Amino acid sequence: MTRKLRLGMVGGGEGAFIGGVHRTAAQLDGHYELLAAALSSEPQRAARSAAALGLDPERSYADYREMARAEAARPDGIEVVSIVTPNHLHAPVATAFLEAGMHVICDKPLALSLQEGETLAALARQRQRVFALTHPYAGYAMVRHARALVRNGALGALRLVQVEYQQDWLSQPIEQDGQHKQACWRLDPARSGPTGCLGDIGSHAYQLAAFVSGMLPSQVSAELCSFVPGRQLDDHAQMMLRYTCGARGLLWASQVAAGCANALRLRIFGSQAGLAFDQERPDELWLTPVGGAAQCLRQGHVDSAAARHASRVPAGHPQGYQEAFAQLYVDAAEQIRARQQARAPFPESLDLPTIEDGLAGHRFIDAALASHRKNGLWMDIQAVRNAH
Amino acid sequence: MTRKLRLGMVGGGEGAFIGGVHRTAAQLDGHYELLAAALSSEPQRAARSAAALGLDPERSYADYREMARAEAARPDGIEVVSIVTPNHLHAPVATAFLEAGMHVICDKPLALSLQEGETLAALARQRQRVFALTHPYAGYAMVRHARALVRNGALGALRLVQVEYQQDWLSQPIEQDGQHKQACWRLDPARSGPTGCLGDIGSHAYQLAAFVSGMLPSQVSAELCSFVPGRQLDDHAQMMLRYTCGARGLLWASQVAAGCANALRLRIFGSQAGLAFDQERPDELWLTPVGGAAQCLRQGHVDSAAARHASRVPAGHPQGYQEAFAQLYVDAAEQIRARQQARAPFPESLDLPTIEDGLAGHRFIDAALASHRKNGLWMDIQAVRNAH
Amino acid sequence: MTRKLRLGMVGGGEGAFIGGVHRTAAQLDGHYELLAAALSSEPQRAARSAAALGLDPERSYADYREMARAEAARPDGIEVVSIVTPNHLHAPVATAFLEAGMHVICDKPLALSLQEGETLAALARQRQRVFALTHPYAGYAMVRHARALVRNGALGALRLVQVEYQQDWLSQPIEQDGQHKQACWRLDPARSGPTGCLGDIGSHAYQLAAFVSGMLPSQVSAELCSFVPGRQLDDHAQMMLRYTCGARGLLWASQVAAGCANALRLRIFGSQAGLAFDQERPDELWLTPVGGAAQCLRQGHVDSAAARHASRVPAGHPQGYQEAFAQLYVDAAEQIRARQQARAPFPESLDLPTIEDGLAGHRFIDAALASHRKNGLWMDIQAVRNAH
Amino acid sequence: MTRKLRLGMVGGGEGAFIGGVHRTAAQLDGHYELLAAALSSEPQRAARSAAALGLDPERSYADYREMARAEAARPDGIEVVSIVTPNHLHAPVATAFLEAGMHVICDKPLALSLQEGETLAALARQRQRVFALTHPYAGYAMVRHARALVRNGALGALRLVQVEYQQDWLSQPIEQDGQHKQACWRLDPARSGPTGCLGDIGSHAYQLAAFVSGMLPSQVSAELCSFVPGRQLDDHAQMMLRYTCGARGLLWASQVAAGCANALRLRIFGSQAGLAFDQERPDELWLTPVGGAAQCLRQGHVDSAAARHASRVPAGHPQGYQEAFAQLYVDAAEQIRARQQARAPFPESLDLPTIEDGLAGHRFIDAALASHRKNGLWMDIQAVRNAH
Repeated sequence: MTRKLRLGMVGGGEGAFIGGVHRTAAQLDGHYELLAAALSSEPQRAARSAAALGLDPERSYADYREMARAEAARPDGIEVVSIVTPNHLHAPVATAFLEAGMHVICDKPLALSLQEGETLAALARQRQRVFALTHPYAGYAMVRHARALVRNGALGALRLVQVEYQQDWLSQPIEQDGQHKQACWRLDPARSGPTGCLGDIGSHAYQLAAFVSGMLPSQVSAELCSFVPGRQLDDHAQMMLRYTCGARGLLWASQVAAGCANALRLRIFGSQAGLAFDQERPDELWLTPVGGAAQCLRQGHVDSAAARHASRVPAGHPQGYQEAFAQLYVDAAEQIRARQQARAPFPESLDLPTIEDGLAGHRFIDAALASHRKNGLWMDIQAVRNAH
Repeated sequence: MTRKLRLGMVGGGEGAFIGGVHRTAAQLDGHYELLAAALSSEPQRAARSAAALGLDPERSYADYREMARAEAARPDGIEVVSIVTPNHLHAPVATAFLEAGMHVICDKPLALSLQEGETLAALARQRQRVFALTHPYAGYAMVRHARALVRNGALGALRLVQVEYQQDWLSQPIEQDGQHKQACWRLDPARSGPTGCLGDIGSHAYQLAAFVSGMLPSQVSAELCSFVPGRQLDDHAQMMLRYTCGARGLLWASQVAAGCANALRLRIFGSQAGLAFDQERPDELWLTPVGGAAQCLRQGHVDSAAARHASRVPAGHPQGYQEAFAQLYVDAAEQIRARQQARAPFPESLDLPTIEDGLAGHRFIDAALASHRKNGLWMDIQAVRNAH
Repeated sequence: MTRKLRLGMVGGGEGAFIGGVHRTAAQLDGHYELLAAALSSEPQRAARSAAALGLDPERSYADYREMARAEAARPDGIEVVSIVTPNHLHAPVATAFLEAGMHVICDKPLALSLQEGETLAALARQRQRVFALTHPYAGYAMVRHARALVRNGALGALRLVQVEYQQDWLSQPIEQDGQHKQACWRLDPARSGPTGCLGDIGSHAYQLAAFVSGMLPSQVSAELCSFVPGRQLDDHAQMMLRYTCGARGLLWASQVAAGCANALRLRIFGSQAGLAFDQERPDELWLTPVGGAAQCLRQGHVDSAAARHASRVPAGHPQGYQEAFAQLYVDAAEQIRARQQARAPFPESLDLPTIEDGLAGHRFIDAALASHRKNGLWMDIQAVRNAH
Repeated sequence: MTRKLRLGMVGGGEGAFIGGVHRTAAQLDGHYELLAAALSSEPQRAARSAAALGLDPERSYADYREMARAEAARPDGIEVVSIVTPNHLHAPVATAFLEAGMHVICDKPLALSLQEGETLAALARQRQRVFALTHPYAGYAMVRHARALVRNGALGALRLVQVEYQQDWLSQPIEQDGQHKQACWRLDPARSGPTGCLGDIGSHAYQLAAFVSGMLPSQVSAELCSFVPGRQLDDHAQMMLRYTCGARGLLWASQVAAGCANALRLRIFGSQAGLAFDQERPDELWLTPVGGAAQCLRQGHVDSAAARHASRVPAGHPQGYQEAFAQLYVDAAEQIRARQQARAPFPESLDLPTIEDGLAGHRFIDAALASHRKNGLWMDIQAVRNAH
């Protein structure tokens, strides 16, 4: 086995959820060793969290800038950092570590604004660092296979993209009872920015559709809603999409879809065949030829480099959310090593969401919001800056 | 058993498809006796078709006006007529028989235009005749149960209506090969009017959503597309809906959705629970409470007057499209008999699509088309006449 | 259309269930006209029932022997009789009508014993009459397609046959509360004979497996159980099967399978592919090649003479239990007409359960019961007479 | 976080599959640190494999006995060993480490024979060490929930247990082409012992049924088959089961079930409700009350200590095979720490397959084999020793 990559983490201290998912993802396939962290900006909490993880106390930091500086100065300093802080710190932290020469694996969203994201992207390009953005659903083996099917033309010319993401955890006004911290900050414009459901899960739906279809829509006509009285941000978003090739799409995301836990579903229809994926049954991909029998492709069953690359176990042994997440870490490791060794990365490792996905997501959210504010006027997504 | 109702039919001669579905529907539960018909406007074909059905030659007509007149004059003349002609004759034929005092069971669409439909509706109201419009999906037991669940408040306040209808039989330009008669006339503006897919199946999706939700949307923002080059009418339609109560909806209908045969699916989400129905598995209705386990309700299993009313066989014995269609005939028979006996019909028989559904469909199609022509501008559906 | 066949019925008066299913089946496709009946052996009830069906009072009988005699003497007498009496009358009634020269469509079971069945079979062969036995699940389009797939070798050499039939309506001792007539007679050895669940639904499972696989097992090792205290007949049966070609099978039937309405499921595995059918989703047939993607074949989608023959509506329009039942009447009509016209019947009409299926069922039940009584000793099915 | 447990591993060197699954399972939740190993009995291969894993060369061994001795002598020696060797070494290795005072996590099967297993069990009891047997399907959250439902009486009195395990990878004679090492040894009596499919996957099916139902059957009537010519061991096994409470069961396992990857399915029916689990969709558990709607319970959705204990992510985020496997390591860690701290373990950690499951599996296999050899004679499972 190749040497493990030296990993640092910012955010993800005691009580955090996504930090643990990242740590498990990093170690699942054995490519990383967590050596340094700024788990909290509160020094005692940072230290306690680091101790709980068995980190060297010397390499536990409370200030991410100090961490970037100190680690850059060590001969055994970290090579890559995972950023799992609250959203508003993603870009500042990423900036600090890019400037210190590290590669970055950043939880979504990329930044608080498109402008902030673009500045960051320019820096990443300039420093030639790997920048992975953790849209985990892009790590499922059958999502990889779906992407390969589209790329190889198995669907013919694409016509329809239907993507939806349903949850129901905001069906009731739980942000008002003081018990649900996540509901509180996600529905608070001061902390979440101008969108709720759209930015939180609509962005995942958008990314998944783009990842599999290989296309970004050019225009959007959108509407946001808040169904629960008193709610300040959207708990539902729905929109129509246009693609330059003539394809059309619908995207809807809802956190008040009663009975749905995490129902992210994608359907794409082409001139020859369609496909369907349901995140809650991630080992299955449906391929539906025109006029023919639907086929249930399963992870491990399909003869596809893309699917094999993201499968750890034989056919019929389900992989879950955590494995999908870990796949992003696998691919980031390969890309980092390729840069270190001045070689091309394995082609399959390029199926990894990057800073470009983050920028595309910002453009999409901005355009959708702008359309909503103009009563559904079709907005150009790629020219979204001009629309502000 | 009560006396059978004396039934006539206009249209549905040799080679016709929907005429046979209506005849089977009429006789499935034994409430009707087909006694007279104008099966074709071509006399020899009409006679041949009548003979094949074992009709009395005296009561086979080539001219529907003559049939209406002659049957009205007979003491044993028909009481109700089924109209299964090409679309442009629906309203003229219905007018002739309403004026002759008969009840009407009419295949959809109601008319060629909203105006024609409204004139017809006024006549039906004036003559106090039963007028059933055969949207067959409203006849499924589990659709009836879904409607009852919504009406009884099981979903709480409605928030989202998602309805979609996918077919793939127009994925290729089959209207250009001279072999597919139905494709030819459905895609010919001269014979189908200004819409293709929208009017053909979008109207069914709209009716089903309205039937179950008990709500008509107030506004629509729509887009129609023709994906196959050279096609003059839409083979795909997608739109956003607004309801006066604040609910939102999406509707899409497509005849180029690769791999889909007749995938009419409805989901409705309320503040307490959601429901989902798939026409291709019509014995199953999913009820999904907020935060709870999805339940698969089955025909025959549920304790519901509405579902029992539309179930002929015990739980686990599937009913199909033909039984759903027949249910409309059952309910029309009950309503006709109630009028004949000057009594109230059984309440369950009122779950029957009527001329009002036809008018609503016309308003919807007109509004969607108007929105499409104005690049997706939100159009008022109920005030659609003004938009022309 | 050809002249309708003149149909009589014995049994099926007021309050009966299966009589109505047969009548609807007979008229669904328009091949029969019900002209005479002995709907009950109680004269007034027979007359009332006949009047309710609009039968000519002269052709309503209380005595089936008189009916056979009188109808045989009429120039317009019935050509075929449907037998829907209690089980113990199936053979006597069939005998009377065969002797009078009529064709027979008989509800299952064929007879009360194998011996009685064999006598009847000899008579039917001697008189060269069509004898259809209504195992309705053999009428589904996708069951027909499954049978064709096996026959055409699509599965390779057959290895495994797994069939199961689950209901739950006897989960509680409902036969003891005096409210459930059907439970009472089905669980009363005096009226049902020596088996309960095995004869009632196990026989359907056996027939379906034989119909699709084209094979009858040679040996059975069986066990019957009564789970509800005080119950005299089996409410569950399970068994292993051996086929002469080396294939193996399992069959289980249960009326105490909690949560199951009418779950008749068949799986067959061959050296090349497997198939699976679930009666509660009868429009779908799963074909599963070795190492490949499962395919969901749908009625109307498959290019198969057998499936088309049993499909009345386009792909995606579900057919149900009643249509499957009607298919048997369609096929019986074709076979009767072929005999009347001294020609070969359409090949697809031969996929019809006959008196041979009834005999096979008796042999199977007798052998399974004998095995059960010998603690699961493997019994030869075809030589079952010797085992008595 | 508590200190990590010091883990050793025997077996699992270069090219091995299950060793990697165990290592990932051990590290997924952070309870173990792999510090020593005898990855191969071939010294150079052992050293290479250890280096690839980054192990201290001093703690890489070629001889597991030496490893047990050396580690026991170190103050920082391992506390627990994972055994992932070929089957014939499971018991000898476990014996060596138990005698050295270590806890054991052993891949299945427990031993080569019941006798060997019982000797081992006696040793484990005497030494009071934790002994976990890795039947991974017992680690799924919904399997844990199913077990809790049965234990809490949600199903009423149990009546039927139906368990099946289907694969198709042995559909063709791949053991004869020299390319498939696993097929070779699994079908070689010299290396696999007297059973093939029965011991390999039938044992998992048996364990799962026992784990969820909480019952071991008392008697079995079994048949083994080899469908592929020239094959020396069974590639299919089917059997009937009897339980002392009166319940009945069927178990079948097949490696020639065309189209099945790893289809382990369990259904249990009680007097009040049934349940169904399918390993290929492990986030779903079906609960089916008598006469009621089937409910789809999902991981994260159910309010159950047992399910929560085995869930790492919110509802709708799938967990897979690797997480189920890791759950066994989580529970073993808790039991080991409880012993170290002389306290009772968390109750949920007791849902862990142990050496008793291994003994039960041996008794079952021996009894099934004995029954097969006596043409399906019912054999007592618990008294199986006497049957030899």
